[in-house]
Amino acid sequence: MIEPDFSKGDGLVPAIVQDAGTKDVLMMAYMNRQSWEATVQSGKATYWSRSRQALWIKGESSGHFQIIKNIFIDCDNDTLLLQVEQLGGAACHTGHRSCFYRKLSGGDFVVVGEKIFDPKEVYK
Amino acid sequence: MIEPDFSKGDGLVPAIVQDAGTKDVLMMAYMNRQSWEATVQSGKATYWSRSRQALWIKGESSGHFQIIKNIFIDCDNDTLLLQVEQLGGAACHTGHRSCFYRKLSGGDFVVVGEKIFDPKEVYK
Repeated sequence: MIEPDFSKGDGLVPAIVQDAGTKDVLMMAYMNRQSWEATVQSGKATYWSRSRQALWIKGESSGHFQIIKNIFIDCDNDTLLLQVEQLGGAACHTGHRSCFYRKLSGGDFVVVGEKIFDPKEVYK
Repeated sequence: MIEPDFSKGDGLVPAIVQDAGTKDVLMMAYMNRQSWEATVQSGKATYWSRSRQALWIKGESSGHFQIIKNIFIDCDNDTLLLQVEQLGGAACHTGHRSCFYRKLSGGDFVVVGEKIFDPKEVYK
């Protein structure tokens, strides 16, 4: 059976998160074995927060859960791609739809992404 | 000026690579500052090979260069998203269009992705 190889990245694998409908890349986060198993069992994206060193059910504060539609693994078994339905329409804690809301243009990154919510209203 | 923060990940940032046309996620690789600057200057995706510990111009062996169309940076400045034109039609060294050619189905990952070339013919 093929499964993510957690041995390479200090117990973690990166997970790229893509909107299942629009195919926009929404964010990237990390999973350890515990969060991987929780994701598969619950059908909701669950990560490992490196800053908090804790299991992180995406959406547990905001209600903006990520419902798993498809999961892909890369050729080296060390990176995952999740296709999700993003509840609330935004994945980024800044309120933008995607964490990748700034684009390189004329030597600097400029905001191009859509802001869906005001973080002050969502994270109280 | 906003630029990638190479300090967090031991001098490296992950770069997600997406087909600029179809929005398929093709692969993920790592960049150090040198490969980042080479990418911006040349317009061809250039990574840092962690296994070879060397600059890696994607396509230098196969001819399957990745022509940069857009570059995005995430909210923490520590992950990049490249939208590219994938020459040769395949990003994966296995000959598949995407490195994410296996999908979780019934508890195991099964091949669903398209194979574009025979690696034995391309990497001689």
